[in-house]
Amino acid sequence: MQLSIEQLKLELEVPFKISYGATTVRENILVHLKEGKFSGVGEAAVVPYYNETTARVSHYLKHIPLEILNTEFLEDTLRQLPLSESSMAKQGIDLALHDLWGKQLGQPLYRLWGLNPDNCPLVSFTIGMEEDVKTYREKLHDSAQYPLLKLKLGSGDPDYDLKMVKMARTELGDHILCVDANGGWSAEEALTMIPKMADYEMIFVEQPVAKADFDGWRTLRKSLPVGMPPLIADESVQGVESVLPLVGLADGINIKLAKCGGLRPARQMITLARAHGLQLMIGCMVESSVAISAAAQLAPLMDYADLDGNLLIRNDPYSGAKMENGRMILPDAPGLGVKRRAE
Amino acid sequence: MQLSIEQLKLELEVPFKISYGATTVRENILVHLKEGKFSGVGEAAVVPYYNETTARVSHYLKHIPLEILNTEFLEDTLRQLPLSESSMAKQGIDLALHDLWGKQLGQPLYRLWGLNPDNCPLVSFTIGMEEDVKTYREKLHDSAQYPLLKLKLGSGDPDYDLKMVKMARTELGDHILCVDANGGWSAEEALTMIPKMADYEMIFVEQPVAKADFDGWRTLRKSLPVGMPPLIADESVQGVESVLPLVGLADGINIKLAKCGGLRPARQMITLARAHGLQLMIGCMVESSVAISAAAQLAPLMDYADLDGNLLIRNDPYSGAKMENGRMILPDAPGLGVKRRAE
Repeated sequence: MQLSIEQLKLELEVPFKISYGATTVRENILVHLKEGKFSGVGEAAVVPYYNETTARVSHYLKHIPLEILNTEFLEDTLRQLPLSESSMAKQGIDLALHDLWGKQLGQPLYRLWGLNPDNCPLVSFTIGMEEDVKTYREKLHDSAQYPLLKLKLGSGDPDYDLKMVKMARTELGDHILCVDANGGWSAEEALTMIPKMADYEMIFVEQPVAKADFDGWRTLRKSLPVGMPPLIADESVQGVESVLPLVGLADGINIKLAKCGGLRPARQMITLARAHGLQLMIGCMVESSVAISAAAQLAPLMDYADLDGNLLIRNDPYSGAKMENGRMILPDAPGLGVKRRAE
Repeated sequence: MQLSIEQLKLELEVPFKISYGATTVRENILVHLKEGKFSGVGEAAVVPYYNETTARVSHYLKHIPLEILNTEFLEDTLRQLPLSESSMAKQGIDLALHDLWGKQLGQPLYRLWGLNPDNCPLVSFTIGMEEDVKTYREKLHDSAQYPLLKLKLGSGDPDYDLKMVKMARTELGDHILCVDANGGWSAEEALTMIPKMADYEMIFVEQPVAKADFDGWRTLRKSLPVGMPPLIADESVQGVESVLPLVGLADGINIKLAKCGGLRPARQMITLARAHGLQLMIGCMVESSVAISAAAQLAPLMDYADLDGNLLIRNDPYSGAKMENGRMILPDAPGLGVKRRAE
């Protein structure tokens, strides 16, 4: 087994603004594996606001003992990976091993998991915040081709958040809309805002309170009236160990491969969450078609899919899963089903 | 897709005694599926003391709408199976679909799950109760070829149970021993017996109190000293929904395909149990090599394997997973890896 890593420099079409700040370039890392005539590719997102760096991820990936990488016993290999320090490095190697494994068996991963690719839910397209109201209105109309839109809120000014939601509902009357506060509300603000989100028929509210604000989650659960949109935890979710503390607080969880460490932990989280009655969303970072196509393999198991990370990139080096009429189309090719684009 | 069922009449080598009673014949049902050039076989155990009958299981299996049986989307098919009334009928069709699926993909199931067949734990060989002490001693020596022996207790007389454990430890000093009370103790008896099981180095105690005696489980958890053998729930375990109520009470669960409804729910239980820190045992009923080989596919994920159900049968119609030196050897053949024996 040979392993090599490749630095990506993903250029964003437009600077992406969320409550953490704005960004124009992302430096993810590709992991390439080769064994005999087969090869596999994985992607490690490198997300600055999770305090991850390309240097650190590369360091971990370069120091994986190659003798433990065995796709024949994929489950054992993944369980034994010594990468608990970096979920993103783990994502890179987990994806590459899954891709290689699927290619060796000649099957797409969703097929090896017995999933029907026609069961993918609608994919949400994300609309970042804009300070200028006119720009925001234009952005809404530019995105009207997507049937399901996710509005980023948590601007720090609940009144402004509300104004954006109201505008979106007015301008795009028939669209399915949802909101993501990215943890930008206090519990008190959320208690005011969430009923208003219900009024504007937002199908869910993502991460209303801050990542570690479990008191806030408890307050919402205790004090919100019935009939509210489901509350989906995102920043409060990391890996497998983060699911159980959210049972009874959130209505669902957003699973991201970069945060949980790849497809194996994601699948464990799915089983665990379903057993506890949680709804499921699959999310992404700013990632190329490698990581997006990996996440898309799990889409048939999801209630919501937020897999637009590659649509934001000008120079995606791969093609794979793609969006058509707002729905994910899974590639009919082995492993992750991705192909390098011509330079 | 064609489905046919076949009645089995499994003859036991010796009448099998547990705290429920004795039995000499079992009438399980085989499910045969055929699609194009591939076929699959599954087995529904029919366990009288679970109030299941061959008539009922056959009825359910004959009324499965064939149009929903689709191995390409195995996960969907299994999720949609309308068989919540009979976990054993469900086991039959779940196993047959998995076998067919594995054959279509040309891979053993453990390989499709990425499991290393060399990681199977020791298999326990079960020694039933005997009223006559001399017969019991002979039985112990007849089973000395197996490194791990499970002693059935719960005779109704704790003193007699203890006598059998003492004799087993004396006669088979170096063997690994464990006990199964089959729910035959009251909580008070269990509080006395379990520390004695520790003295005799039993590696676990299975189902000390009755199936529905959750007060008993709580008493044990509260009142047992530290350093006791792990308590494994068996009768208290049914399907996926039965795992969470045992968290914090039992140290582990015994998963049986006939009780949970096949390999799909078993795999969900595994993920769920591990996430909650439970140990895992895979168990069986009196079953042919079809069901035993199915359960054996999961053995690499287990701490303990109690898969001797086929060793008790005189006329096993199939061969598949087999025991060698007390360990399960998984067949290197697609699907369940079983083969019909010559008549």
